[in-house]
Amino acid sequence: MLLFYQPDIAAGTTWLSEEESKHCTRVLRKREGEAITVTDGKGFFYECTITKADARKCEFIIDKIIPETQQAFRIHIAIAPTKNADRLEWLVEKVTELGVAEITLLDCDHSERTYTKLERLQKVAISAMKQSQKATLPLIHDLSPFKKIFTQESEQRFIAYVDFGNPQHLIQVATKHKHYLILIGPEGDFSKEELALALQHGFMKISLGNSRLRTETAGMAACCLLNSINS
Amino acid sequence: MLLFYQPDIAAGTTWLSEEESKHCTRVLRKREGEAITVTDGKGFFYECTITKADARKCEFIIDKIIPETQQAFRIHIAIAPTKNADRLEWLVEKVTELGVAEITLLDCDHSERTYTKLERLQKVAISAMKQSQKATLPLIHDLSPFKKIFTQESEQRFIAYVDFGNPQHLIQVATKHKHYLILIGPEGDFSKEELALALQHGFMKISLGNSRLRTETAGMAACCLLNSINS
Repeated sequence: MLLFYQPDIAAGTTWLSEEESKHCTRVLRKREGEAITVTDGKGFFYECTITKADARKCEFIIDKIIPETQQAFRIHIAIAPTKNADRLEWLVEKVTELGVAEITLLDCDHSERTYTKLERLQKVAISAMKQSQKATLPLIHDLSPFKKIFTQESEQRFIAYVDFGNPQHLIQVATKHKHYLILIGPEGDFSKEELALALQHGFMKISLGNSRLRTETAGMAACCLLNSINS
Repeated sequence: MLLFYQPDIAAGTTWLSEEESKHCTRVLRKREGEAITVTDGKGFFYECTITKADARKCEFIIDKIIPETQQAFRIHIAIAPTKNADRLEWLVEKVTELGVAEITLLDCDHSERTYTKLERLQKVAISAMKQSQKATLPLIHDLSPFKKIFTQESEQRFIAYVDFGNPQHLIQVATKHKHYLILIGPEGDFSKEELALALQHGFMKISLGNSRLRTETAGMAACCLLNSINS
């Protein structure tokens, strides 16, 4: 199944963007009368029929609306952007594939990078959502001060901290069917002040295993492990 | 700790390669009498002292040999190379970080790519090993016919197969402290013949969760999950 993205379909926008129209009609050579599947990135698939195979504005009618199967858990990853933009984009791709509800970019004491291209990250997420045939686009929040994350709703809160004297593994403490919020620090890790603050605000210090992981690998591993708990 | 790589140190090669020598003396400006840590990629760390800070051939003496903590399990991933070489390199980086003993590139019925740059993959693995401060370099085997994998030693054998009617998740069937061999197919998945053949040879069909994952994401997820079982 090939998936197209139209965020405003529920509001009556029954055509594809120029980029998607071109892809649909030029690359895939879809014609009037052919079936396509569109998602709004908000949890719905739309089975549609093309009514005008225009490369700038491909129009369609909706035949059927299918809600995506709802997950009984929700993952929110708050992560310090990596110095290398590719690695952050890679992270967004992977956690979108694995299934994440929210991504917040965290500005930390030891952050090496504060500039992020939010639009580019959103594009990566849309592409990964389509590729993995999901109908829910993760919410991506732009760089946020560390303390602001404490106001975010969640049922289980974790902070990944490199401390080999702390053997409490994420999968030993996370429980099924919860709304998780997990903090992943920059290359130099969270500062001691940030860690203390997080602990005060109900975050549990956890390990992701015995390996020393890069920031983006840690983010991906956390997502993978929380998924496995719920499988 | 900054780690340097010298595979032949146990055989008496007490100097760094030209590339490592340059990095050590030019970039990091290490001088005679300073301490460095070297690994042979075969399970040992060597604490050394520089005796000649030459940018082409940095010499040292060994002060202490420290064996790496041995893991009670072993992961061997056999995976179809991705069409895009970057994705394969990325996989090698990530599973090296997470901890994998062996990687075999599998030539499958639906493989889209048969050419792989083994040397480049080895370079990526060395860099990831140093970055994650490990002393064991994964063995990387070049493209191998699908059937040849059956001759490989292992205690638990899995084949990841996209089949949503098959809910047996890897973490439900894998048990602690084993030598695992897991097969990850190409974008078009394994052929029915390959699946049947693997089942005949004692491989168990497993799922990696509800998401449709790219080949390299599946490889990384498998590694992450097998690690978590052993944590």
